[in-house]
Formats: sequence, structure tokens, C-alpha cells
Amino acid sequence: MTATSQHGWTTDPRELLRVGEGFRLADVDPDATPGYDGRKKHGRADLRAGADELAALQERLYAQSRVDPSTPAVLLVLQAMDSAGKGGIVRHVIGATDPQGIRLKAFKKPTAEELQHDFLWRVERELPEPGFIGVFDRSHYEDVLIGAVRELAPPEEIERRFGAINDFEERLAASGTKVVKVMLHISSAEQKSRLMERLDRPDKHWKYNPGDVDERLLWPRYMDAFQTVLERTSTDLAPWHVVPANAKWYARLAVQALLLDALESIDPRWPAAAYDVAAEKRRLAAS
Amino acid sequence: MTATSQHGWTTDPRELLRVGEGFRLADVDPDATPGYDGRKKHGRADLRAGADELAALQERLYAQSRVDPSTPAVLLVLQAMDSAGKGGIVRHVIGATDPQGIRLKAFKKPTAEELQHDFLWRVERELPEPGFIGVFDRSHYEDVLIGAVRELAPPEEIERRFGAINDFEERLAASGTKVVKVMLHISSAEQKSRLMERLDRPDKHWKYNPGDVDERLLWPRYMDAFQTVLERTSTDLAPWHVVPANAKWYARLAVQALLLDALESIDPRWPAAAYDVAAEKRRLAAS
Repeated sequence: MTATSQHGWTTDPRELLRVGEGFRLADVDPDATPGYDGRKKHGRADLRAGADELAALQERLYAQSRVDPSTPAVLLVLQAMDSAGKGGIVRHVIGATDPQGIRLKAFKKPTAEELQHDFLWRVERELPEPGFIGVFDRSHYEDVLIGAVRELAPPEEIERRFGAINDFEERLAASGTKVVKVMLHISSAEQKSRLMERLDRPDKHWKYNPGDVDERLLWPRYMDAFQTVLERTSTDLAPWHVVPANAKWYARLAVQALLLDALESIDPRWPAAAYDVAAEKRRLAAS
Repeated sequence: MTATSQHGWTTDPRELLRVGEGFRLADVDPDATPGYDGRKKHGRADLRAGADELAALQERLYAQSRVDPSTPAVLLVLQAMDSAGKGGIVRHVIGATDPQGIRLKAFKKPTAEELQHDFLWRVERELPEPGFIGVFDRSHYEDVLIGAVRELAPPEEIERRFGAINDFEERLAASGTKVVKVMLHISSAEQKSRLMERLDRPDKHWKYNPGDVDERLLWPRYMDAFQTVLERTSTDLAPWHVVPANAKWYARLAVQALLLDALESIDPRWPAAAYDVAAEKRRLAAS
């Protein structure tokens, strides 16, 4: 019995959304809400309930790590086309946890210094410590997505990176980090409507960048690049999940469920006191 | 009219809690709830309302910084005796904002590398960028608190640090950072009861450290050290606020009010589009 089975999930989203053998991105319907037997209203209620579970598991994980340095970490990797809802996941799913146990990093266009190093250099520096939930808003996958589409690196370098990524994530998993990789998948039409809303509302203008349309014009090439990335880097230890994201409430619920699963698989425990409780009570009472 | 005046505050807590000329820590009652005309129940409701205001201001501040690199940052500095509620402030006040606009740093005992540098070195590296709310859970003030009480540095070095801190914070303020310094003030009896609860509850054992009682035994010396710190480093540009913290709900509300004041004094605005909105609408429509 997992936490997620307590709610409107009819099928474990971890299995349902996982990228396995023969996966085809083109077959995923961005409007769908697979495995969830409920509508927006139920989804929101379940999100609130899940937030409490997530916060409780997070606190236990953090607590365990304070006493046991071999405690695992969790790393959520978010990739998506512009406006697919990464920010909303951070605000509504991650935002419901304790900031003290979160390591959030939004990766931007690499700086001159970062470009002087291997593409994984800046990523390694941002990995979560034991007991933390790390969140990558974009990640090393940019280097094989925009990197391939915009030909920022030659094909043989892109090829090398796939191997490097799989090695890197295997090491991560071996060192006790639960890697949860998520592609938020919206349709091209949904993106158009979301970008138009940003142009229509003065309080959203800052979220829009003319470059967004430049990338949008390359939509088919991005979908091809995602297909390749998903095929080449969805491994047993660090599988990808493609989350239909036209319905924001569903995407948030699904990512929350994936995080809950990751934390439950760690099964963190309140650590035993590393001191003599009775003796400390006496010492404190006398103080 | 400030946001805080809309709620149960009868007097602006920024003025009321501010450390000014002739301030005496010994005169502050940790049980008091100065300036707030309401009880716990009202305080909680106001905290929720304030959270929405804080999130809205935070988003505007962040938005402005995306377009205008001269946008200010906010830096909340939290200092307190153990168990005074710093963690609760982070969870309940900061936790209600968008994690994407927060830079949280919990300073621990300095590492060997950190000790090889000036005490401000590790602090400078964690300053919030424009548009961010930085939160220091402990800070450079440890170096003049435990630093003085435990004689980790000679008196002339402690003396030098006061000057260095004032210079540092003056530079910070000049570069556009709103510095909000808070001492959470609990009584010795309240600390005893909170530490005892940690010993009584197995799910709280991890929060207790035998060293907590060692520090507790030095309570009067810590109060003296705080008094000196407050006297020497409460400046016009970066004043200290002493927040009575025996009532957790009050302390959270007061710190939230101080943050709201800081953000309102910045008065962040939705930035104008740095592109031609009509032209982009046409380009997007055609895409």
C-alpha cells in the first residue's frame, strides 16, 4: 500500500508514466490524466492531502540524515518545453514542503566559466546532500536537448554526453540518491495559448521572452530530441517519466505522487538518540 | 497605510521592536505580544492573510529583477538561542512564499576551509541576488556571539568584527539590499520546556544535542553577548529587531510583518515589456 493508492489513483503513476522499451513520445496525449480517477476538484484536494504526507516524509528523511550520513537524497529533475509548468510544480508541490530540506537549482544558459568545464561540472556542484530533496529546474539534459537542436555541440559530443549522463546517474544512484526524472509534456497548441496569455496580461509580460517563439518554431525538432533523450537515458536506476501536462492540476499531482513513491521507497525512520536520554533529562532538569 | 496595518497590529512592529538608543534586552518580556491586539487564533488567521500578501510582493520583486538588474534584494538574518523558533519561522513564514525566489542558508559551525578565511567570507558567498529574499539561519553574528562567549577569538578580534560587520552591512544596504535583522527572544524557562519536549518525544530526539545544555548553562553570558551585539550593530541602515518569541504564533506574525514592511518599502512593480508586445502577438499567432 503506497500513499498514492490512498487517493484517486487507480494505477501507480510510477509504472504508468515510466519510459520503457518501445516508448514513443508521439503516442502520449498531453491532455490525458492517466491513472487518475477524478477531476480537477478531486485532484486539488488530493494535492493538499499529499502535501501533508510529503512534508511528513521529508521531515523523517531530514531527521534520519542528521544522525546517519548514509541517508539517501532525492533528486527531482524537471525538463520541459517553455510554459509547460515547471514553475508551478516548484511553487505548488515543492513549495508545500519545508524549505530547510530543499536544494533548488534553476539552471540557466551556461556562463563563460561553466562552458570552460565539462557539462556535468556545474551539475555535480548542485547535488543534494543526504536527507535533502534536490530539485533541478532544467539540468544536464539541456546539453542534449537545446544542445542537439541548436547544434551547440557536434553530434559525436552529443553522443558522448549520453554515455556520460548514464554513468553519472548510475554513480548517483549507487551513492544512494533516488533520481526522479520528469518531462512535463504539453501540446504545441497549449503552449501557444499559455504564451499568448503572457502577452495579454501586463503582470505576465516579464515571463515572456521573444526567444520563446524562436524555440517554439523548432517544436518538431525538440520533440525528436526529447524522444532520443528518453530512449537513451531512461534506465532502471534513473528512469524517465513523461507527465501529460496540459492539465496543470494533473501534472502537479503526478509529480507529487512520484516524489511520494521515491520517499516511501527510502522509508526514512526517526533516528534513535545518539545520547543517553534519561541522563540528558536529568542534566536539563538541573540546568 | 502598510499591509500590516490592515490586520491586528495596533502599532507598527518595525518601530516597536526596533533596537534603538538605550535598548536593554533584560527589559524585554519574552512572553509579550507587543503591538498586536489579538490572540493566537487571530494571529494564525492574520498569518495566512499575510502569507498571500508576502507571496504577491515576492513575485513582483522577482519579476522586476528579471528585467531590471538594479532591483533590490531582501536579507532576513535570524539569530536566537537554541529552540527559539528559527526553524518555525523558515517553515511557516518563508515556507509560504515561492521557493524560486528564496535563497536560504543555514550556517553551521565553520569548516576548516571557512576558518582559513575572514569570518565574512562564507557569508558574502551566500548573499541573495537582486529580486531574491535571502534568509540566514544563523549568520556572521555567530562570530560575535558564541565567538565571544566561548572565547573562540581574542577580545580585540571580536572588537574588530563589530566594525567589519557594520561596514559590511552598510555596503550591503548601499548596494540595494534591505537587511532585516531579527533576534528571537525566549526565556530560559521556555527553552527548558522546549528542550524537555524534545527529550520526551522520540520523533524529536534528533533535534536535541547534549551541547544544547552546555550552551544553556552559559545563558547569562549569552544574554550579555546579545546585549553587546544589539548595541554595537543596530544601525540606521540595518537595525536589529528583538521579537518576543515565547508565543510562537506572535514571533511568526512579527517576522512576517517585518518582511512585508521591507518589501513594501521597495515597492516592486511589474516591469514593462522589453519587447514589442503587439509584434510578438503576431509572431506567436503565426507560429
